[in-house]
Amino acid sequence: LNQRAINEARDRQDQMTKPPGSLGVLEDVSVQLAGLAGECPPPIPEPAAVAVFAGDHGVHAQKVTAWPQDVTTQMVHNFLNGGAVVNAFAEQVGTEVTIVDVGVVGDLPTVPGLLPRKVARGTADITQGPALTRTQAVYAIEAGVEVARDLVSAGNRCLVTGDMGIANTTPSAALIAAFTGFDPADITGRGTGLDEAAHEHKIEVVRRALEVNAVDPNDPTGVLAAVGGLEHAALAGFILGAAATGVPVLLDGVISGSAALAAAALSPASMNACFAGHCSAEPGHTVALRHLGLHPLFGLEMRLGEGSGALLALPMLQASVRALRDVATFDAAGVAGRA
Amino acid sequence: LNQRAINEARDRQDQMTKPPGSLGVLEDVSVQLAGLAGECPPPIPEPAAVAVFAGDHGVHAQKVTAWPQDVTTQMVHNFLNGGAVVNAFAEQVGTEVTIVDVGVVGDLPTVPGLLPRKVARGTADITQGPALTRTQAVYAIEAGVEVARDLVSAGNRCLVTGDMGIANTTPSAALIAAFTGFDPADITGRGTGLDEAAHEHKIEVVRRALEVNAVDPNDPTGVLAAVGGLEHAALAGFILGAAATGVPVLLDGVISGSAALAAAALSPASMNACFAGHCSAEPGHTVALRHLGLHPLFGLEMRLGEGSGALLALPMLQASVRALRDVATFDAAGVAGRA
Repeated sequence: LNQRAINEARDRQDQMTKPPGSLGVLEDVSVQLAGLAGECPPPIPEPAAVAVFAGDHGVHAQKVTAWPQDVTTQMVHNFLNGGAVVNAFAEQVGTEVTIVDVGVVGDLPTVPGLLPRKVARGTADITQGPALTRTQAVYAIEAGVEVARDLVSAGNRCLVTGDMGIANTTPSAALIAAFTGFDPADITGRGTGLDEAAHEHKIEVVRRALEVNAVDPNDPTGVLAAVGGLEHAALAGFILGAAATGVPVLLDGVISGSAALAAAALSPASMNACFAGHCSAEPGHTVALRHLGLHPLFGLEMRLGEGSGALLALPMLQASVRALRDVATFDAAGVAGRA
Repeated sequence: LNQRAINEARDRQDQMTKPPGSLGVLEDVSVQLAGLAGECPPPIPEPAAVAVFAGDHGVHAQKVTAWPQDVTTQMVHNFLNGGAVVNAFAEQVGTEVTIVDVGVVGDLPTVPGLLPRKVARGTADITQGPALTRTQAVYAIEAGVEVARDLVSAGNRCLVTGDMGIANTTPSAALIAAFTGFDPADITGRGTGLDEAAHEHKIEVVRRALEVNAVDPNDPTGVLAAVGGLEHAALAGFILGAAATGVPVLLDGVISGSAALAAAALSPASMNACFAGHCSAEPGHTVALRHLGLHPLFGLEMRLGEGSGALLALPMLQASVRALRDVATFDAAGVAGRA
């Protein structure tokens, strides 16, 4: 982060026609965006693009979810037809939607809006061995980096993370346990809606995955290969790619949060570009965000993924910069300051 | 609220291609909006208009704030020149800004965007007697009702509350104490930034106002006249006017929250139309929202007023309806449901 731009933004926040500090957390957001851009005011983070990385999971065989695996493929079709929540929310906030197949089991059509980056037809079952080979994990990370780079080249000034993958809260929990050291019981949630018994079972599955696979948080790519998912690895790359171009990344829920842990382990500086859109209902998300030092912009108990939560925080990021850019100073507006 | 529309909205939320309940609080928001409109899906709450009610306060003489009283007038000029935070945020979310002078001490020009509804040149000092005569309070309430009615007639489908008035967190605290029974020490905040000693003094001022003026929460107009402000009374009317037309009202911070207590006391049903945009840093705001049974959509420790916080919640309201309207059902999209 550029310290001169940070100082300029802080100074300007105190000269704007409002009580100092009265925009609360949004003042910090605007300052971070200035530091990231290296200028004050920074550009308004628009247009924005949400990338929804889709993949399937071998651990689905362990009955960690009540949803059929086919739903991943079916939902990709739904995204492409504009029928999902991410489409509705993206339209509301004026954001382009890109779907990236990094590991869906089913075949998908070659159509605009879908980037074919399939590394494998789903991961292997993490209770039996590693999810991916290291090479596959690297391919998925690279796919994410390239999507970020291409979206920035296309003119986007804010990237939003999204995900789709039936069973993907299970590898997320394993990743969060691996990177934070928390016990699976404390960070494994009910995902899309498990009952008590199924939730207990899911915790045991996460525990088994961490017993079967040695994970070393100092080897983030190895952790992603061991207990992650293809969309998790791609999201980690997406965050790294965006951060490398100096464009802010708005993180969605627990899948994105677990991927951000991997990105932070690979490059701590990448977190300078990250903003937590919301805090989801998944307990692991709270733990991941605390570990990363990120403060979510809202919490409405959402637990959908797709980028849905992050999209609703986008106007907040944009408004924080618009205020920094457009609000008059006390001097310029002829408004008296505090006595 | 229309029960048939509520049931239809709940049913539709469960048929949409997402896990049931996964939009969290936004599902309740969309259901309430359907009930309010009497149809499912309800219209998207756009266009929206924010009305900033401005007034001055005799209690300013008690040194409850470090800001000169002239700043109210100066900030109205700033609003009209597009230089304030409310202007920047309104532009971000595509909202029209209307300023309503219900009680500014200074003279203001006759210009577009400013509605001249001055009831008095500020209130009287509430530590010496009532802020307003009952007639003045009624005029201010009526002005608010009419502004709401006119903005709805002009085609707006969501109204957003805003306020400007140096010293106006002091009458807000007195109103909150009067309507909720909380002790002034528990609901009086630091406003735009008081130090410890000044905060203690402000609490004593609120306490004195409630000793000098008999307040009966069963006589809301009397309470507004006794310890309120002209913008508080107008905001209460604005809420009642919007609710009467069936249009949702997005409430801003502690000034709006205290006015909503008066509106709820005058007409409990008016709360069916209300949504709390955010929870501000003022302790009285939390108390007021709890008393009203309203759940804020976010909390970023903002404490500015002007409608700034509520505006950032507007895309959430709009997105909740857009999802209800546009997201495909499992059947229509050919997506399998849960096993």
